[in-house]
Amino acid sequence: MLRTHTCGELNISNLGQTVKLCGWVQKSRDLGGTTFIDVRDRYGLTQLVLNVDSDANLREAGKSLGREFVIKVTGKVLERTNKNPKIPTGDIEIAVEALEVLNEAKIPPFLIEDETDGGEELRAKYRYLDLRRNPLRNNLIMRHKIAQEIRRYLDAQNFIEVETPVLIKSTPEGARDFVVPSRMNPGEFYALPQSPQTFKQLLMVSGFDRYFQIVKCFRDEDLRADRQPEFTQIDCELSFIEQEDILNIFEGMARHLFNTVKGIELGDFPRMQYADAMRLYGSDKPDVRFGMAFVELNDIVKGKNFGVFDNAELVVGINAKGAAGYTRKQIDELTEWLKRPQIGATGLIYMRHNDDGSLKSSVDKFYNEEELQKWSAAFETQPGDLVLILAGGTDKVRKQMNELRLEMGTRLGLRSKDKFAPLWVVDFPLLEFDEESGRYHAMHHPFTSPKPEDIALLDTEPGTVRANAYDMVINGIEVGGGSIRIHDREVQSLMFKHLGFSPEEAQKQFGFLLDAFEFGAPPHGGIALGFDRLCSIFAGLDSIRDVIAFPKNNSGRDVMIDSPSVIADAQMAELNIKTTV
Amino acid sequence: MLRTHTCGELNISNLGQTVKLCGWVQKSRDLGGTTFIDVRDRYGLTQLVLNVDSDANLREAGKSLGREFVIKVTGKVLERTNKNPKIPTGDIEIAVEALEVLNEAKIPPFLIEDETDGGEELRAKYRYLDLRRNPLRNNLIMRHKIAQEIRRYLDAQNFIEVETPVLIKSTPEGARDFVVPSRMNPGEFYALPQSPQTFKQLLMVSGFDRYFQIVKCFRDEDLRADRQPEFTQIDCELSFIEQEDILNIFEGMARHLFNTVKGIELGDFPRMQYADAMRLYGSDKPDVRFGMAFVELNDIVKGKNFGVFDNAELVVGINAKGAAGYTRKQIDELTEWLKRPQIGATGLIYMRHNDDGSLKSSVDKFYNEEELQKWSAAFETQPGDLVLILAGGTDKVRKQMNELRLEMGTRLGLRSKDKFAPLWVVDFPLLEFDEESGRYHAMHHPFTSPKPEDIALLDTEPGTVRANAYDMVINGIEVGGGSIRIHDREVQSLMFKHLGFSPEEAQKQFGFLLDAFEFGAPPHGGIALGFDRLCSIFAGLDSIRDVIAFPKNNSGRDVMIDSPSVIADAQMAELNIKTTV
Repeated sequence: MLRTHTCGELNISNLGQTVKLCGWVQKSRDLGGTTFIDVRDRYGLTQLVLNVDSDANLREAGKSLGREFVIKVTGKVLERTNKNPKIPTGDIEIAVEALEVLNEAKIPPFLIEDETDGGEELRAKYRYLDLRRNPLRNNLIMRHKIAQEIRRYLDAQNFIEVETPVLIKSTPEGARDFVVPSRMNPGEFYALPQSPQTFKQLLMVSGFDRYFQIVKCFRDEDLRADRQPEFTQIDCELSFIEQEDILNIFEGMARHLFNTVKGIELGDFPRMQYADAMRLYGSDKPDVRFGMAFVELNDIVKGKNFGVFDNAELVVGINAKGAAGYTRKQIDELTEWLKRPQIGATGLIYMRHNDDGSLKSSVDKFYNEEELQKWSAAFETQPGDLVLILAGGTDKVRKQMNELRLEMGTRLGLRSKDKFAPLWVVDFPLLEFDEESGRYHAMHHPFTSPKPEDIALLDTEPGTVRANAYDMVINGIEVGGGSIRIHDREVQSLMFKHLGFSPEEAQKQFGFLLDAFEFGAPPHGGIALGFDRLCSIFAGLDSIRDVIAFPKNNSGRDVMIDSPSVIADAQMAELNIKTTV
Repeated sequence: MLRTHTCGELNISNLGQTVKLCGWVQKSRDLGGTTFIDVRDRYGLTQLVLNVDSDANLREAGKSLGREFVIKVTGKVLERTNKNPKIPTGDIEIAVEALEVLNEAKIPPFLIEDETDGGEELRAKYRYLDLRRNPLRNNLIMRHKIAQEIRRYLDAQNFIEVETPVLIKSTPEGARDFVVPSRMNPGEFYALPQSPQTFKQLLMVSGFDRYFQIVKCFRDEDLRADRQPEFTQIDCELSFIEQEDILNIFEGMARHLFNTVKGIELGDFPRMQYADAMRLYGSDKPDVRFGMAFVELNDIVKGKNFGVFDNAELVVGINAKGAAGYTRKQIDELTEWLKRPQIGATGLIYMRHNDDGSLKSSVDKFYNEEELQKWSAAFETQPGDLVLILAGGTDKVRKQMNELRLEMGTRLGLRSKDKFAPLWVVDFPLLEFDEESGRYHAMHHPFTSPKPEDIALLDTEPGTVRANAYDMVINGIEVGGGSIRIHDREVQSLMFKHLGFSPEEAQKQFGFLLDAFEFGAPPHGGIALGFDRLCSIFAGLDSIRDVIAFPKNNSGRDVMIDSPSVIADAQMAELNIKTTV
């Protein structure tokens, strides 16, 4: 090896040793004839020193080092006079005896420090330099640790990691596929998997019993901060289990990860029915780091000649505890925020519970003190609280109130990145009606089983049928979801029928799975967790970009390698395709 | 859970317990009023029993079970009268108290047993049934174990697993790329990676120090038993190391895997120079499970008026120990085998060392007893040995002799699947001349560094320049290879020049890497091991197909899911492509 130690491990116990270190020059400074150089590697930072006792050529060489030069240094470990308690190597420094420049470096286009001056595009172009910065590198080291612990946990639970193919078959269900022309099969295409769903179900038919895979998946969708065309999934499937078993095993996995990687005890995950989540939080992924649950007011506010409430399908509010100090101006501004097209509320009603105990609403004209006392009771307000109310169609107003609740949570400092509030949302609807196509879509996917007691409703009220489906939610982010699958060919065919597939279409697309179900499919179910998102939650980031080594931008481009790119005509000819632009 | 135990764990210590098992009916038989049913899951096989004491309906139900039915059974663990010492559960059986058919099964198209009657195509179509068979499932379980142990070993050595992108940029070097049209960037394409080579080098520039990844790679090449369009690589890269460090770390990894997964101690890996491997075995991946090294005979056979030898560039032979009993007919047949176009030898010369000590050659006309004694000495023959000799152009005859040596090794039973003989082949040539294009190609890849002492030869004798490159070989199979990389932009540019790239082409294709080298690239090197091949060696298989869950056939088709397939015109239109067939 070119080194005897890394830049992160020397301490007082190494005093007097002659060591060799390699790394990058973080910075160097001259102080009264002494040159101090900080040399950095993945493991840490060590101070080198060249002073009047050092060889003159060596001192000259030390002075000429630029930032990010790669050096190899030999020297003796000395105790520092000015110790730096902030870093593990802060008690020592290296008196340089030999210095070799392994590679020079041009001046980097931005600062390689925890806080950098580089803009997003510049850092994307020089991603390899951005990755030198501690915050990014630490994210990826953490990602590695999480992956290791996932595998350790699942292996101990008898799961087998099986690689499923990347070159598969395009299906019309779900998101848009990326496709790959086949040279050997002219005119035909592979597709990249949106998930290994059918393969993992086939592995259950094969008797693998417990499968997992940390696997790249692909969706050709329009991109945003938490979406990438390629993303990584923790994909799992189990046989001979019930929903409760799956929740326990994967709640156990999440607890194991938080415990081993972050030293945090998560405790038991609450379970919330989908219907309750929508009613109390207006979302199927409620952020339960804070309360502020919805209170429905229809029973107590209607019939007082206030048209907005009387005409609304739902009147619903939240108690923003401690926000009574909000000025009229602040509330007006909040109202404007709610009226933006992204949210689309028509107005905001409020009631203050003043410090003197009095109640004051923006609709005092319609509601007297006695009525407001009812409101106060419903919201359990105390002096200092601010009640915020919206009215309108149920679905719409719940969505709006969800936005308002999250916004108030943020404003009131209730959504700390250091706090983790997980839960399971269960009993999702099986189907959701798509206005555009005028038919039902599978809410989870077409292999999800309906609750047995609800199957009879499939023909009459398909929208009310509940599924054996569940989502893991942490801090208002859907970390993953899964379901108990259909393992019966008849039920699967029925499901395809309700999704508008003709038997021929179903056979053409999923024939191999339907066939497999005839050869002894076990009861099975599973889950898929978004690995990038999980890592971003661990890292306290809003975007998944900085837990991915080489992400793509919002146009799906990797600006560092300049991809995608045009390919040669000969290459296209071999693949029997041509472009139409 | 639907079960209390798996089908592989009950034994005499469970006697009297009431248990629930789930699994597939392996077989059932009636013996004098008693029905025995073997139920199978991933973990094993358990015998169920229904006899005269059982409920009549239950007995009827037991009799009606077909092969591969999925059942759930409740019953009491009893001691067997006829114990089966071959299986872990062979001491017990379950007296059935309740039986539920979880799913029926059609009669499988082939036997779900260790030895099956299904042909290759049928088993490929019903791969999910083939995967139920123990040999296949055990391969995949072993593959999982190997992957786990790889990660354990590398993690302990400070390697970080970093996922590199799957959607990258097409490059003209190396094999054919699979490409993916980009919808968001009309007319442009991503490529699937043939390896993460440039990304792992960039991670070194980023200071990641030690990287690995078990990763899918893709090559659009014509297929054969040990090639798949998608395959899995153990990809690794390290900074601040020398070749010797890499050999030690990955030799250590291979030893760790054989030790933990197969309980085999491999010992130290011999190291062999490429030139010696070619001279002694005619191959850069010699099978050293057996000796039979080449002996070059030019010095002792020339000048005896035997034109075949006199006109040959190289006369070379092997001592097939103990094969002197080969009849004339067998040798004629071997000669015909050598003359097949795949090998292309023109003739075979032999010398028998008879049991009575006499020497008898097929060219006694030219070589007398005294001359043959020289041959005997060169080959160190003993009575019973058979010397086989070929003559011709050096490269060609070495290749032919390599084939003959391997064939004789096989015929003499020297190539047992249970024996493992690893070695490192080192000091590969940097470049190889390609007759077709009339220029040099990188033997490993264009980022491999030349030996510093050989750089001067690049201009004068490029074919003789040695590289800091190495291959790990086990049982004559190249498991993987790597090199110390170029980390200097000047040397990298020089290399591209010698590979026939103009500076513009080099910049266009690899500009981001060349740029990166200007910002402080550390000395680095790495290795990539073929994970599928490694698993097939562990499993004692010639083909990698049966260590892959869902492989493709020789036309790149997955016959189970019927992929690739045609896609909709609308889908192509969105991607701005059309097919030309």
